[in-house]
Amino acid sequence: MLLLDRDSRIPLYLQIRNQLRDMILDGTLSEGSRLMSERKLAAALGVNRSTVVSAYRELAADGLVKARVGQGTAVCHPLSAEAPDSEAAPPPPLIWGECLVPRPKEERDPLLRDLMAFLSRVDTISFADGVPAPELYPLDDFRQAMTHVLDTAGRTLLQPCPIEGYYPLRQALARRMARWGATVTAENILIITGSQQGLDLIARAFLRAGDEVAVEAPSYLGALQIFSAAGARLLPVPLDTEGMRLDILENVLVRYRPKLIYTLPTFQNPSGCTMSPRRRLRLLELARRHRLPVVEDDPFGEFYYTDRPPSPLLALDQDGHVIYLSTFSKTLFPGLRLGWVAAPRPVIDRLSQIKQLADLHCSTLIQGAVCEFCHRGALDAHLDRVRDLYRQRRDAMLAALTEYGPTGLRWDEPRGGFNLWCWLPGGLKARRLMAEAARQNVVLVPGEVFYPDGGGQEEIRLNFSNPPIELIREGIQRLSAAMNLLLEERNSVEGWRDAEFTTQPIV
Amino acid sequence: MLLLDRDSRIPLYLQIRNQLRDMILDGTLSEGSRLMSERKLAAALGVNRSTVVSAYRELAADGLVKARVGQGTAVCHPLSAEAPDSEAAPPPPLIWGECLVPRPKEERDPLLRDLMAFLSRVDTISFADGVPAPELYPLDDFRQAMTHVLDTAGRTLLQPCPIEGYYPLRQALARRMARWGATVTAENILIITGSQQGLDLIARAFLRAGDEVAVEAPSYLGALQIFSAAGARLLPVPLDTEGMRLDILENVLVRYRPKLIYTLPTFQNPSGCTMSPRRRLRLLELARRHRLPVVEDDPFGEFYYTDRPPSPLLALDQDGHVIYLSTFSKTLFPGLRLGWVAAPRPVIDRLSQIKQLADLHCSTLIQGAVCEFCHRGALDAHLDRVRDLYRQRRDAMLAALTEYGPTGLRWDEPRGGFNLWCWLPGGLKARRLMAEAARQNVVLVPGEVFYPDGGGQEEIRLNFSNPPIELIREGIQRLSAAMNLLLEERNSVEGWRDAEFTTQPIV
Repeated sequence: MLLLDRDSRIPLYLQIRNQLRDMILDGTLSEGSRLMSERKLAAALGVNRSTVVSAYRELAADGLVKARVGQGTAVCHPLSAEAPDSEAAPPPPLIWGECLVPRPKEERDPLLRDLMAFLSRVDTISFADGVPAPELYPLDDFRQAMTHVLDTAGRTLLQPCPIEGYYPLRQALARRMARWGATVTAENILIITGSQQGLDLIARAFLRAGDEVAVEAPSYLGALQIFSAAGARLLPVPLDTEGMRLDILENVLVRYRPKLIYTLPTFQNPSGCTMSPRRRLRLLELARRHRLPVVEDDPFGEFYYTDRPPSPLLALDQDGHVIYLSTFSKTLFPGLRLGWVAAPRPVIDRLSQIKQLADLHCSTLIQGAVCEFCHRGALDAHLDRVRDLYRQRRDAMLAALTEYGPTGLRWDEPRGGFNLWCWLPGGLKARRLMAEAARQNVVLVPGEVFYPDGGGQEEIRLNFSNPPIELIREGIQRLSAAMNLLLEERNSVEGWRDAEFTTQPIV
Repeated sequence: MLLLDRDSRIPLYLQIRNQLRDMILDGTLSEGSRLMSERKLAAALGVNRSTVVSAYRELAADGLVKARVGQGTAVCHPLSAEAPDSEAAPPPPLIWGECLVPRPKEERDPLLRDLMAFLSRVDTISFADGVPAPELYPLDDFRQAMTHVLDTAGRTLLQPCPIEGYYPLRQALARRMARWGATVTAENILIITGSQQGLDLIARAFLRAGDEVAVEAPSYLGALQIFSAAGARLLPVPLDTEGMRLDILENVLVRYRPKLIYTLPTFQNPSGCTMSPRRRLRLLELARRHRLPVVEDDPFGEFYYTDRPPSPLLALDQDGHVIYLSTFSKTLFPGLRLGWVAAPRPVIDRLSQIKQLADLHCSTLIQGAVCEFCHRGALDAHLDRVRDLYRQRRDAMLAALTEYGPTGLRWDEPRGGFNLWCWLPGGLKARRLMAEAARQNVVLVPGEVFYPDGGGQEEIRLNFSNPPIELIREGIQRLSAAMNLLLEERNSVEGWRDAEFTTQPIV
């Protein structure tokens, strides 16, 4: 019989319709069966007659019942007459795995799955989130900008905009970049939903399965995933204190002829490393000589804590080899989903064609609000403020590492950005440390996820942008305790039996 | 010499830095050249000495100059020493066309290019925009919803959200669909930036180059473009008054084993046609028998002008074969970029993995505002209101066609949606009519762009959602004049010489 839920938000007539429809479609009510009269069913269910009338009308609209004068309402399953083998077993349900394109294996790294599980716990101190701290959001200024644009230009900003983006925002970004001396105009800008989309569009525009891409090792995980998913082979180029090792890059270029060079030259994610001015010019010379596009990913350039970093490649480039990417996810809010590409016009044209297929254009309203926010000078004011605050967090982490870190732990002092890179002492494995730290409610990212070719097993990335100073100290203290515990374990007899450790010589 | 623009928003020290940098990088200032002393250059340019000091400091940061005590500042181009063949001609600039993956030819349809050019003109009456009318936007309600969520949950809504979307919005959509009797929960919903992104994700999840997709002919242009760009072959299935011809679909399924069936069963774009209840059930039976996913694209289901349309395939489906897509671009604002997929969990999982690569997730803020808007009942109230208004526009177009249209012009009366489909009389070509109508400042879409395989040359799509009633009458009058002009031309001696027309027999 029919069951009605009077507390449900679904109207009663639709509940009746839905249940009768299921009974007709699954054969419980067969062709020709008479439904109860509207009056009788209404009485049986304790509802108004009009409720049942509406339900029957809906069933008739789906062709499942027919009302005949004087004969009531009868089931007329529209397929029952033509169904050839109603006695035969129904076909098995669809097996979706057979319909979907097979995925490459490497996407399913259990290390990342574990990391995500740790991250979703509450009450952990996370050194794994490369995002700005929510308590530093310039919320009031943004609210004012949003209210202002909805009041003054709401109707325009809820309409479609060109694929390339909202023109005033493109102009504002071009002006911003002109300060660095980059020769870009609004025509060289494409607005995207964060650098992630930029990388995806670039992969779709430049790469075919089997192509090669030169990347830094370590590099941004999202980029490695996108290039791999496009079927590209990643050619890792190690970093030193001046950034990408160009002697090795040159070998790679000569040997493999990759289609793109991908670099994060400023406050690199994950290493925090910054490419020296000399290397920047030399990289552009290599690109010129090998006729290769350079993809410059620059999410962190605005977050410098001592001197301003060297000019972006885009500004140093004399011949238009650089495709520059940046985002508002770090400077403003990650939840906005807004970034931009600056590149020569033929590149913008092609990326726009692909973006049209991918999602037409970015939210006009979000673009309008961010444009207004920049126009009011709120972005620069915000950046001035948070540079100080993030510097304090970085310094707190450096101080805590010095105070609590075990002997032999090494790190690079980042001059900007959100990331600090550490080399673990005594053959300690990052994977192992991640598990032990999680037990103490601290999360970090093992270095190996950032290496396309293995490597980084004894390195970790620590983010200092997200937790407040007291938690940074507390977290580094716990993390150091976890390291010490594992180091002691290794020195105990039991530790020696641990296969993971016995393969490592003691340093 | 250096040129300073005192009206520019670029600070003077950066203007000096940028110009000197260019002169060093292009060789105008060679290795070892001495720069003017800071004091002298300041005097020469009429700026403060500190301005020049800042400029030189920036140049030093890029490694382009070096200051020595007592010797002033000298150029030290970091590459000049190692540049091996500075005498040789510089390499030619990058040819981007060689770097980009070649595009398939069909994307470059000149007909579409012409259409876009006509659309961008001002003072045209457009029957080519399948978007809601801006003057009907529920702007006040949306502004209130946005203000409310920024006030109460701003910080949360500017943070990242799960790939699948903002959970309360997923719940709200699941509840909405439960009214139709679709057995979906929030777990079956993925939030996307409009149906366009949904189609792109589906293409990436299900199609490899060379695969086949069964589509209606005519069908939604964006979908045809996406499937083609994925390298798929489109298998057209004609429509009749009851929707997709299933006898032909069955042939296609048996003969080609396509990977997907793509349909817009309700108020179809472009034809306005609605699939009958009987066909819907029969289509699901075919999908079940052939173990095939059905992609149901439903942007217009809420826009019914007489009776409610038959239930969506998603609600009639007993076995989970349907991937359902819809969008807020028609019900609310096209500039928002927000839509959703409802599908079995394995499909949602895979589409989410691809969305993570493509753009991480949709704007949390936009999702929060739309969720609040729905929660207040503003969406249902808006839809009740605009159904009436769009019905009036449809009726105005039907009346004007009856009054002004030339003999032999035929059309289907759409029971919902934004589109009206016409068959032109007397062998008139839509391509030709588009050009003539544009001369009279009226834009329409020629039918052939919606056919994957040619066809539709004598058909047009007219949109009645966007222009107000007076302009609909005016536009149809002008369009009819254009048709009459072309028909008369054909009957004149000169018309007979026109190659385009002589290939057509007179009916």
